[in-house]
Amino acid sequence: MNINSIFHAAQAAFLVFKNLSGKEKGRFLDTLAEILESSRAAIVPLAVRESNLLEGRINGELGRTTGQIRLFANLVKEGSWVEATIDPAMPDRSPLPRADIRRFLTPLGPVVVFGASNFPLAFSTAGGDTISALAAGCPVIYKAHPAHPETSRKVAECIHQTLAACGLPVALFTHVEGGIEEGQELVKHTMAKALAFTGSHAGGMALFHLANQREVPIPVFAEMGSVNPIFCFPQKLEKENDALAKAFVASLTLGAGQFCTNPGLIFVPEKQVQNFGKAIATELKDMAAAPMLHPGIAKAYYDSIQSLKARNELCWVKVADPKHLINGSPALAEIKAADWLKDRFFHQEVFGAFALLVIYRNQEELLEIAQQLQGQLTITVWAEEEELADQLSLVNLLEEKCGRLIFKGVPTGVEVGHAMQHGGPFPSTTASQSTSVGSHAIKRFTRPIAFQDMPQKLLPEALMDANPLGIWRTVNGILTK
Amino acid sequence: MNINSIFHAAQAAFLVFKNLSGKEKGRFLDTLAEILESSRAAIVPLAVRESNLLEGRINGELGRTTGQIRLFANLVKEGSWVEATIDPAMPDRSPLPRADIRRFLTPLGPVVVFGASNFPLAFSTAGGDTISALAAGCPVIYKAHPAHPETSRKVAECIHQTLAACGLPVALFTHVEGGIEEGQELVKHTMAKALAFTGSHAGGMALFHLANQREVPIPVFAEMGSVNPIFCFPQKLEKENDALAKAFVASLTLGAGQFCTNPGLIFVPEKQVQNFGKAIATELKDMAAAPMLHPGIAKAYYDSIQSLKARNELCWVKVADPKHLINGSPALAEIKAADWLKDRFFHQEVFGAFALLVIYRNQEELLEIAQQLQGQLTITVWAEEEELADQLSLVNLLEEKCGRLIFKGVPTGVEVGHAMQHGGPFPSTTASQSTSVGSHAIKRFTRPIAFQDMPQKLLPEALMDANPLGIWRTVNGILTK
Repeated sequence: MNINSIFHAAQAAFLVFKNLSGKEKGRFLDTLAEILESSRAAIVPLAVRESNLLEGRINGELGRTTGQIRLFANLVKEGSWVEATIDPAMPDRSPLPRADIRRFLTPLGPVVVFGASNFPLAFSTAGGDTISALAAGCPVIYKAHPAHPETSRKVAECIHQTLAACGLPVALFTHVEGGIEEGQELVKHTMAKALAFTGSHAGGMALFHLANQREVPIPVFAEMGSVNPIFCFPQKLEKENDALAKAFVASLTLGAGQFCTNPGLIFVPEKQVQNFGKAIATELKDMAAAPMLHPGIAKAYYDSIQSLKARNELCWVKVADPKHLINGSPALAEIKAADWLKDRFFHQEVFGAFALLVIYRNQEELLEIAQQLQGQLTITVWAEEEELADQLSLVNLLEEKCGRLIFKGVPTGVEVGHAMQHGGPFPSTTASQSTSVGSHAIKRFTRPIAFQDMPQKLLPEALMDANPLGIWRTVNGILTK
Repeated sequence: MNINSIFHAAQAAFLVFKNLSGKEKGRFLDTLAEILESSRAAIVPLAVRESNLLEGRINGELGRTTGQIRLFANLVKEGSWVEATIDPAMPDRSPLPRADIRRFLTPLGPVVVFGASNFPLAFSTAGGDTISALAAGCPVIYKAHPAHPETSRKVAECIHQTLAACGLPVALFTHVEGGIEEGQELVKHTMAKALAFTGSHAGGMALFHLANQREVPIPVFAEMGSVNPIFCFPQKLEKENDALAKAFVASLTLGAGQFCTNPGLIFVPEKQVQNFGKAIATELKDMAAAPMLHPGIAKAYYDSIQSLKARNELCWVKVADPKHLINGSPALAEIKAADWLKDRFFHQEVFGAFALLVIYRNQEELLEIAQQLQGQLTITVWAEEEELADQLSLVNLLEEKCGRLIFKGVPTGVEVGHAMQHGGPFPSTTASQSTSVGSHAIKRFTRPIAFQDMPQKLLPEALMDANPLGIWRTVNGILTK
């Protein structure tokens, strides 16, 4: 099928899908979750083989995938997410009467979704972007990631099986394979209304500029990863030195470090660095190299390490060993904050299990670091509560630099819930005003529309006087059900 | 003061403003409304002189301006607008415990606002963009429109007087004068976090591309006007021919046609066109030419009319008469739908009191028109309820093309309320997922942030367990107070 036919079919399907009730959309999503689960035995081995990730991880990822499908199923079945807002007419208002105005969120239309290499299930074919777009009421043209084609085909099959079982148009989901060029053609098509992407900075930015240069620009929801710094405070380290070193190394090396929320930067006070560095070295020593997603990613990892090794500001605690190119062996180097501050080169993400331990001298330097920090998905602060008592300006500054600010535990492990924010200031995403994880992600694929004096019969159910859906609505500025 | 100092001062003021309570922000906005009202006698004559608009209109616009300031004051005093969402910790959840995650909307930081020529008060210095940004907690760097410098200075004075009266940093609002270059320098500054603009397509697009080409791109909320088509159905016209003609001409010529929601396109069924055209001609006949905002706008208006007059597809009902170049005399021409469909030239906005009456033959042609329509701020449908009974596909199509769909009355007169949506698909705006009028406009200047396991004492009040603000929050997915 050529791209033009794909979009025309998707647009036709959209006009059907758009008028489907939340209950029906929810039933579709619930059925999809069931069908994916019942296909577990077929999907998991494919994904393990194509991603080099462990079976336990892939099994967990399938659970996460169906979990988020059910989150959106419940959201659309309940229905209040459309932000229905009603300002009823005031025919007697003076000097001018007020018209009846009703507003809610309406789906955008066909959406292009790009699969991610590092989550063959949860951020791919039936992953968060696809599901939140479908939940919103948008058909999805899905560009499969070439690193896991068979997994993607199998999951696409499950989606099509579900559409058939629910009597929905097959064109609500189209599986497209190909390279960069095919992806660009999708983004350039006049009928595309938005795009979602999870991947590299270069890839995300290419799509961002392409989308903005269209005759009709479209929104780009690109999550491009980040360095996810951890700020360590002296008392906290004093107290929990070994436990924190263990937690840090576990987070750094999880899944061969191939998470968007991988902690690639840790700021440690000068006085603690010897103890903490030693504890980290102990943890890292026996950490085995794990196979990376594909040879290209492993090569990029070692190339980055190589270019860092050429810099004499660094003191290596553990050097990655490129004996087997597919294996990403963990690595860590130390650098003084003064040197880190001088060169943006050290601020960049290295995709994989590498971190830079930055030694800072005092609170002033820490504040300067916070000021220079680029936008991040997450920032973690390890401090005793009393240590933060007079740190409001630092905390405020860190808030400005991230989408999620963490005070306990590690940045990896993104909870899929209502309160999650996965999306920080540029360059971590191109759209910090949205999230790609959690129930708010649905809003990316909608826009508000207002109806003025629309006859009751024509109004969407969410906006009818009788509130037949029983949803929360803002009427005359007051939330009511 | 140079641009760099302006932004540094604004950023410093931001860190104070950010931690101000909603009550205090509300008090500031209420005081501003009072001070503007008490300065009415000084402001109105300036604005009348600089805009050529009638005193009644400017008086009304000042009321609208203070009305929207009070809308935002009430919104921030009440406080629920921050979308507080709390997923409490589940330490015993299996297989993994859930962290405590809390999310709300946080202000972006310093925002650049461009004043509009056609609303010297309501979309200018203390207009909707400035006020919604301040209400969100963002300092505003305001680029005054050169068409009304004295009005702008006077209103800026009122804002500074209010800031002083409330003990707030003066740098929360900076008044900048200059031309295109000065505006571009503001947008390029690294500390600018977003920009809002109301004006021409060319101006909006230049800023859009500039903002996207920054090292760190920023969101652009540009409202660039539209043609605001009216779709007339036969039975409705049959019944209300003269009244609708009167309403149409009144809306077309209001304020010399210089509204973003001015109806520049009206689709009329072939059978009714004689009667309706005649009624329109009668209304237009004695409609006096009114002075336009400034000579540049009047010249652009007559230039557009001139280039339309060169086209022989048009049949002129009334031709604009450029006797006095500052006066925009109303004009109207008829064209067959088949011709209109063939050339995008006829789809463009002419800023001023000009409309194209497009004669359509049947429902099929109407559907084709809807398909070809560009994105609009508003679309109006004049039809009897029974005429729309089998028009779901047309209504769905029109929904896709606009931000507000109107079934009674005219598109001019944008209500400032909770349900208003002023912002449609491109090219009417660069940001159809937001509105520039109504309470939702505040969200443009915020982004979500999540706090994970943050100590209660450090949390913003909106997210504390005790809910000290008494606002609506989503806790575990359930709305509660």
